[in-house]
Amino acid sequence: MKIYLSYDEMPKKWFNILPYLPRPLDPPLDPATGQPISPEKLLAIFPEPLIEQEVSDKEWIDIPEEVLRIYSIWRPTPLQRAERLEKFLDTPAKIFFKNESVSPPGSHKPNTAVAQAYYNKISGTRVLTTETGAGQWGSALAFATMFFGIKCRVYMVRVSYNQKPSRRILMQTWGAEVIPSPSDRTSSGKKFLSQNPEHPGSLGIAISEAIEDALSSDEIKYSLGSVLNHVLLHQTIIGLEAKKQFEKLGIYPDVVVGSIGGGSNFAGISFPFIKDKILGERKNLEVWAVEPSACPTLTKGEYRYDYGDTAGLTPLLKMYTLGHDFVPPPIHAGGLRYHGDAPSVCLLYNEGLIKACAYKQTEVFSSAVLFARVEGLLPAPETAHAIKKVIDIALECKKNKEEKVILFNFSGHGYFDLSAYDEFLSGRMKDV
Amino acid sequence: MKIYLSYDEMPKKWFNILPYLPRPLDPPLDPATGQPISPEKLLAIFPEPLIEQEVSDKEWIDIPEEVLRIYSIWRPTPLQRAERLEKFLDTPAKIFFKNESVSPPGSHKPNTAVAQAYYNKISGTRVLTTETGAGQWGSALAFATMFFGIKCRVYMVRVSYNQKPSRRILMQTWGAEVIPSPSDRTSSGKKFLSQNPEHPGSLGIAISEAIEDALSSDEIKYSLGSVLNHVLLHQTIIGLEAKKQFEKLGIYPDVVVGSIGGGSNFAGISFPFIKDKILGERKNLEVWAVEPSACPTLTKGEYRYDYGDTAGLTPLLKMYTLGHDFVPPPIHAGGLRYHGDAPSVCLLYNEGLIKACAYKQTEVFSSAVLFARVEGLLPAPETAHAIKKVIDIALECKKNKEEKVILFNFSGHGYFDLSAYDEFLSGRMKDV
Repeated sequence: MKIYLSYDEMPKKWFNILPYLPRPLDPPLDPATGQPISPEKLLAIFPEPLIEQEVSDKEWIDIPEEVLRIYSIWRPTPLQRAERLEKFLDTPAKIFFKNESVSPPGSHKPNTAVAQAYYNKISGTRVLTTETGAGQWGSALAFATMFFGIKCRVYMVRVSYNQKPSRRILMQTWGAEVIPSPSDRTSSGKKFLSQNPEHPGSLGIAISEAIEDALSSDEIKYSLGSVLNHVLLHQTIIGLEAKKQFEKLGIYPDVVVGSIGGGSNFAGISFPFIKDKILGERKNLEVWAVEPSACPTLTKGEYRYDYGDTAGLTPLLKMYTLGHDFVPPPIHAGGLRYHGDAPSVCLLYNEGLIKACAYKQTEVFSSAVLFARVEGLLPAPETAHAIKKVIDIALECKKNKEEKVILFNFSGHGYFDLSAYDEFLSGRMKDV
Repeated sequence: MKIYLSYDEMPKKWFNILPYLPRPLDPPLDPATGQPISPEKLLAIFPEPLIEQEVSDKEWIDIPEEVLRIYSIWRPTPLQRAERLEKFLDTPAKIFFKNESVSPPGSHKPNTAVAQAYYNKISGTRVLTTETGAGQWGSALAFATMFFGIKCRVYMVRVSYNQKPSRRILMQTWGAEVIPSPSDRTSSGKKFLSQNPEHPGSLGIAISEAIEDALSSDEIKYSLGSVLNHVLLHQTIIGLEAKKQFEKLGIYPDVVVGSIGGGSNFAGISFPFIKDKILGERKNLEVWAVEPSACPTLTKGEYRYDYGDTAGLTPLLKMYTLGHDFVPPPIHAGGLRYHGDAPSVCLLYNEGLIKACAYKQTEVFSSAVLFARVEGLLPAPETAHAIKKVIDIALECKKNKEEKVILFNFSGHGYFDLSAYDEFLSGRMKDV
């Protein structure tokens, strides 16, 4: 069963959770002074409209017409019911998912990439830089910038550039320039190359290169795919659509589940529902953030100020963190390997409004293969974390004879992760 | 712009073009006797309901409820308008495409794979065998058999098995057994292996192995992904849905375009429209079959009886053929490298009811990259043949100031063909 919305039914505003938080967010701190950072400093790397959204206290923010038109290439996305999975598990629970894998880059990421490209375009940006690991975020930004005639320059961790060519080629097909990092284009890149001409790179180094590049000109800006308030804001279209789709069915979910790396996929599906919980209209709503046990930010991190990047160049954010120098083991869910989480998500967790749990990658892949064989859709490893939790909840419902309605975010497909499936199916995958 | 149908609006019957053909098809001939083959002989490799469909003179054939339910995972597929492409080309033409790439295996192929798996299931088949090159068809059959508890055994050309692991892993994730061919599982495989233990294999050898396997037991049958009447029949759901979607818009296409390998993608989109042309209701409808100039079956082949396979084991079919021993150069549109075409398509071509044209692969990839950059969707190389023709027609419309409505079949996505895009973008691609 699939529930569609027409283009006319697509939400025309994003939902901003900031005014609903039980207390204000602690401000980002300037890494140089330790004092709250001034918006002017951020203008060097982000365009003004995005900085305004970052600190906005308005509940609803209009989605520009140009963004809606590009969203319409794959949005509204279907809300689908996993009836075969319910039957296989023999559970009285009803399992629904929002299918964000139908976007051309294959994940939820273009929801913010398109918006960021648009605001950069109207602010005069000519080049957007970013970093990417395996390429999920980089391909979303390459896709988005194309529609606005903005050049996209992606610093891609060299080991992924060499070993995982698919998304690199996808970015190039969409016209992006993809640079293996460390590169000789920036002074920080040169430094690492001089130490080791074959340096495998890291996300931390790639971030430093992308930011240094953006700082070199007013016409070059930097773009981030998660963690920041404006990024999460753009993703709320997922949950807003899901609410409308549930309204058509006359039901409301009892549980909302999203996997979590930096927080954009989780926030996108959950924030519009969490609002109802905060307002007391849905006090019993359960919301789960699912993370890898190899990078257990919420479940084992400390709630304190920390840098957003490894090198300590970005503003300090108040969040659950494993330490900015924590290097997560190389699990296949590359999108969930972040030492911190979005400050708004962390505050909700600290206030007990959401719950978190962590899984090992072999049990996650076991759920992914089960889902693929029962429902036919191949989940990304990131998405499969949510699926593992959904299966656990559905089995609990079976034990307790509970007819809960479960919603999760099918955040991306696994077509570019088949080597990980191969490792799992052949028994070579290890828990780390 | 996307036009959706609800599940309830999905066609409940397939359209059989056989009773509408201007003259009956010449019968398949037994390769041993040269006489029309008896249906009993075919029962050794195909189940009875599919043989009935192969020769049926009924215009409409019911789609079983179980098949409709599985179709609903991705069907009805959207009819989309390529407005950005129209604008980019500055053409008065309106360009629409039926998006078959949204199926989990990523192409139109599961339309018949699911139907074939269903009829085999109710006929007692326990194992389905097939051959695959790069894996498009094999992955569709792996996907389909999963829902009916049928084992799927895919003989995959060894060179693809080793060099193109993605679809092999996809098939395995869906539970199929994938065997590099030639293998030691069949006598024909053993013969080739004894000549060369590292034999790279060919589609002809893989077909021989899959058929030999099916002949070894009553519970094992063979499945083919194109060419045969029943396969084309199952694909007509594409064109039937498109007709309903156009009805919602109150328009009717002037031109229908499909790329052609064996004929299933082309027939799927065009047969329901060709009926109107045959009936005289749409005399001016133009229908184009687009093939690679490296394998120019319709444009340069002879219309005569020929074997369906390379080894000469299958029945002889009356078709346009380049000769069953013609070995097409290794172009990237692997799905279009077939020496013949479906007999029904060939008859329509011979009667002047459809037209054909051929393109070189570099001009095809040039159109594919243009489409990806303007519309955001990444076409399979097979699909890109149709896109090249659509662009040519749209530019002609511009010159002649004609507002033609063009429909084409976006038969599959190119996520598993990125190495070919890499070759094109880097200038390494040659015309062959």
